Amino acid sequence: MSRLLSLHPSLLPAGFVDVLPPEAETEAAAIEAMLGVFAAHGYERVKPPLLEFEESLLAGTGAATAEQTFRLMDPVSQRMLGLRADITPQVARIAAVRLARAPRPLRLSYNGQVLRVRGSELRPVRQMAQAGVELIGADAPEADAEVIAVAAEALAALGVPAVSFDLTLPTLADELLATLSVPPEREAALRHALDRKDAAEVALLAGPLADVLDELLHAAGPADRALEALSASPLPPRARALAERLARTVAAVRARSPGLALTADPLEFRGFRYHRGVAFTVFSAALAEELGRGGGYLAGEEPATGVTLYPDAALRAAPPRPRRPRVFVPLSLAARAPLLRAEGFATVAALGPVADAAAEARRLACTHLATEDGAVPLEGV
Amino acid sequence: MSRLLSLHPSLLPAGFVDVLPPEAETEAAAIEAMLGVFAAHGYERVKPPLLEFEESLLAGTGAATAEQTFRLMDPVSQRMLGLRADITPQVARIAAVRLARAPRPLRLSYNGQVLRVRGSELRPVRQMAQAGVELIGADAPEADAEVIAVAAEALAALGVPAVSFDLTLPTLADELLATLSVPPEREAALRHALDRKDAAEVALLAGPLADVLDELLHAAGPADRALEALSASPLPPRARALAERLARTVAAVRARSPGLALTADPLEFRGFRYHRGVAFTVFSAALAEELGRGGGYLAGEEPATGVTLYPDAALRAAPPRPRRPRVFVPLSLAARAPLLRAEGFATVAALGPVADAAAEARRLACTHLATEDGAVPLEGV
Repeated sequence: MSRLLSLHPSLLPAGFVDVLPPEAETEAAAIEAMLGVFAAHGYERVKPPLLEFEESLLAGTGAATAEQTFRLMDPVSQRMLGLRADITPQVARIAAVRLARAPRPLRLSYNGQVLRVRGSELRPVRQMAQAGVELIGADAPEADAEVIAVAAEALAALGVPAVSFDLTLPTLADELLATLSVPPEREAALRHALDRKDAAEVALLAGPLADVLDELLHAAGPADRALEALSASPLPPRARALAERLARTVAAVRARSPGLALTADPLEFRGFRYHRGVAFTVFSAALAEELGRGGGYLAGEEPATGVTLYPDAALRAAPPRPRRPRVFVPLSLAARAPLLRAEGFATVAALGPVADAAAEARRLACTHLATEDGAVPLEGV
Repeated sequence: MSRLLSLHPSLLPAGFVDVLPPEAETEAAAIEAMLGVFAAHGYERVKPPLLEFEESLLAGTGAATAEQTFRLMDPVSQRMLGLRADITPQVARIAAVRLARAPRPLRLSYNGQVLRVRGSELRPVRQMAQAGVELIGADAPEADAEVIAVAAEALAALGVPAVSFDLTLPTLADELLATLSVPPEREAALRHALDRKDAAEVALLAGPLADVLDELLHAAGPADRALEALSASPLPPRARALAERLARTVAAVRARSPGLALTADPLEFRGFRYHRGVAFTVFSAALAEELGRGGGYLAGEEPATGVTLYPDAALRAAPPRPRRPRVFVPLSLAARAPLLRAEGFATVAALGPVADAAAEARRLACTHLATEDGAVPLEGV
């Protein structure tokens, strides 16, 4: 392999990594713990393929991922395939086509790898795990509250501390901007200023909306303050309906998950490319990056809501997981290995005789040595 | 989505499938059960990426998968990437480069999806799960025996009945053919006849080897019979060494796993593209297809052995898994849902009031209804 190394100063393409021990095990256990929470809430697992025809992968909600999707030619069908950059659109397709006749609301869960052509500055990785749920065919504040409660419980299962949900109305800015009669360039500049939360630039560009947008920009924070600001603002009817839905969702979340930290930033839309209604980003006080996001969208023609969690980020916010103790088993004690495994040890079997079993156990990074009297911690040998 | 359907009579490319409930859950649980067995035997999990630079993916043992590997251009590095068609070569790379300084023998486990440009007649799928272990830096019959014992235990964890291991010496045919002085076309024809087990054609082409090859072709079956035939055959030295290694591996497997069914087909080499020493295919009497394969190979410059299991095939051979009971929880009983989940139920929460809770529970494919007195089976309501 030395030839390989000289060919590739960095052996893997930028954004791709080998996950090594013990992180790979921790990640897998975390994902299974999350999926266990999803299953306990009645979400049934689906597993869509990594590759699909480009047109089906990028249809509907998938269109938002077009620029991020690796494409390749399928020599069998002679058609272009895409490597999925997001799983939610695939689950929406399954709900609309394969499970069209299943009763609604339909609760589906998934996990898997997604691939992206380019990483972002904040998330340079180009392959990442996703784990999530989709609640399809329901358009009630209680559906939002269920998805948020399930996400909170999944993160709690990993021990992620101080989780909070930052609610937003990703289409609110558009609804407000639609009431302005300004040239498209100016509307684009205003959207850009809103995206950057540049209050001065917004004030300069927003004309009659300047006061409302300024109030709403400054309303970001605890959910109640944001709801008050929305309530006090003179909103056009469609924006008003969104604000009322946010209030109902906050009430439903409070009813279902009384202790949950809720913030709101009603004008936030960055990264919400197909969401509508109430959407949200998941944070932990232990980490600067987001742990997941979700909210309402259209699955085909059905209202839906869901959440996608990022297990790698969740694990960076979680406390370390205790490692399984490892016990070295000399050949003469091989018959005891099954019992040691039943006790929770990982057994590391000798493949031949060794002169100094304790030294061999240490060399193999074991914590224990099997003896006639059971497993003995190595510091005791 | 109806437009999509009309565009695609078959919505997914040939060989790719959506795994639906309950199969997706069953598959995930089976993979975790297998990886749990691997971990209990001291195999530590690694997770290589789905995409790598083509040259690194197809180096060493990976060369065998070149024709089966999807390739695509990476716009970031401007170099060709390959989508992995096999995980073993990636694990060998990790052992040789990332874990070069880890103590040997190195025990690594993995699971993940692999993709192939073309399915075979027997296995038309182009995306499949693999789960396996690699034991790197050991070249003893006991290493073969450990890998076989671990694979047997992983399949036992799924309840796969009547598992057997069919041992072979994938390089034996080459060693024998190398002693013949025949033109390359005739050697290729002879290899082809051996591959097809065409005894008549082998007899016609094998010249002085006709008797030995005929005996060995007919020796396929119980391991002892094959060992006897090998022992009785006049073999050249390198072939004799292989035969002796097979005998030692059989003895080591018998010592470690006394009840295990062992067969041998010493001339079999189909599909073993990088194996050497003793290799094997895993079967169950419950299924016509193979459940996995493994054996010796070179990981970089180190001797290694390992096994790759195919969870989808293993599950076709396994008994069905009982499904988790599902209980419908009316709004008024929402506070009881956590307790029901703790009892092992999947709870399906009402998102609003329902007139007939039992009817709603049936409509949502639940098995139980939550009542003031706990979960009641629906046939009892």
